[in-house]
Amino acid sequence: VVQADDVVWPGVAAPAARRLLDVALESFATVGFHASTTRNIAARAGLSPAAVYTHFASKDELLQTISRIGHEAALASFEDALGAGTTPEQRIGNAVRAFTTWHAENQMLARVIQYELEALPGDGQREIRALRSVFETKLRAEIAAGVRSGDFVADDLEGVARAIFSVCVDVARWYSPRRAAVDVVANLHSDLAIRMIKAPSIP
Amino acid sequence: VVQADDVVWPGVAAPAARRLLDVALESFATVGFHASTTRNIAARAGLSPAAVYTHFASKDELLQTISRIGHEAALASFEDALGAGTTPEQRIGNAVRAFTTWHAENQMLARVIQYELEALPGDGQREIRALRSVFETKLRAEIAAGVRSGDFVADDLEGVARAIFSVCVDVARWYSPRRAAVDVVANLHSDLAIRMIKAPSIP
Repeated sequence: VVQADDVVWPGVAAPAARRLLDVALESFATVGFHASTTRNIAARAGLSPAAVYTHFASKDELLQTISRIGHEAALASFEDALGAGTTPEQRIGNAVRAFTTWHAENQMLARVIQYELEALPGDGQREIRALRSVFETKLRAEIAAGVRSGDFVADDLEGVARAIFSVCVDVARWYSPRRAAVDVVANLHSDLAIRMIKAPSIP
Repeated sequence: VVQADDVVWPGVAAPAARRLLDVALESFATVGFHASTTRNIAARAGLSPAAVYTHFASKDELLQTISRIGHEAALASFEDALGAGTTPEQRIGNAVRAFTTWHAENQMLARVIQYELEALPGDGQREIRALRSVFETKLRAEIAAGVRSGDFVADDLEGVARAIFSVCVDVARWYSPRRAAVDVVANLHSDLAIRMIKAPSIP
C-alpha cells in the first residue's frame, strides 16, 4: 500500500482545486489514470461533476497539472542538491541522495509522474518530456565534468546517467517504511552511484 | 508506446485461453488492470463474456495467471544465467545481463508483473511475493559468496541487491529500441552492477 502524500500545490490557490488535485493524485496513483473518472474524483472531493470544470477542463488537465508540479518539485530538489556540493563526487552524491529521498517521500506523486507519462495527450506529453530532458542533461553534464577532472570514468554517459536515475526512480515502486529508513536508502544509493562512475585510485 | 510481446504461455493449451491471455496482457500493460474489463478483453479475443469464464473464473485469475507465468519465466532466465558462470563476478554479471534483457524483450509482461502486484487479491499476492523472494534470496546469496571469497564488498546486502534489481527492472519503464540496443544496455548494466560491489584491487 502506497503512503498518502502531503503535496503542496504551488500556484493553485482555490481550496476546491487543491482538493481535486489531492483526490485525483490518490486515484491516479492507486487505480491508474485510465480507471479514474471525473465523476468519482468530484464526488470524493465533495463537488458536483460540473464544479470540476470550473477548475480543470478535463481529466487530462488534472494529470497535466499533477505531472507539471511533480516534475518541477523533483527538479528543484535535484538541482538544489547538486548545487550544494563542490567536488564532482559531492555534487552527484548529494543529487542522488535528494532524488532517492524525493521518490520515497512523495511516492504517489512519483508513481504518477513516472508511470502515467504515456497517458498524457501529445502536446502535454511534449511539455513534460522537455522538463524530463533537463534532468538527464544536468546529470550527464555533471558526470562529464567529473570525467574531465579525472574523478570519474564513464564510456557511455547516457547509459550511466540512466542507470543512476533508475536506482532512484524505482524507489517509487518498492519503497515502504517497513523495508528501510529513507536516509539509509538515500545514503546507500549515493554511495552506489559514485561506485558506478568513480575512477580507480592510482596507487 | 510499449512494444507488443510474443509470450509463450506454458501450461495453457486451449487456443482461446492463450488468446485471452494475449489480449489481457496488452490491456493490463497499456491501460492498467483496473481500467480493463472482462467484456472488452472477451470482445478483442473474439469471444462472448460468458466464454471467458470457461477458461478463467475472473479478471483476477487472468492477472494471477499472467503474473505467475511472467515471474516463472523471469526467474528461469535469471537462474540459467547465474548458473552459466563460475566466478562470483561472472555469475552476477551474467544474471544482470539476462535480467535486463528479459525486461527489455518482454516489456508488457515486465510492466504487468512489476506494477500490478498490488492489484492481486490477498492469497494470489502471497503466492507471487513468495516467488519474488526467491530472486532476492538468490542474488543476496551470490553477493554474500563473493564477499566471503574476497571478490566483493557489501555492507548492506539487502540494499545493494535491491539497487541492482532496480537497474534491471526499471528497463521495463524506459526502454525503447530507439533509445539503445538491448545488448548494449545489458552489457552496461552488468558492468555497473559489478562496479557496485567489486572489492578494491590490492596494488
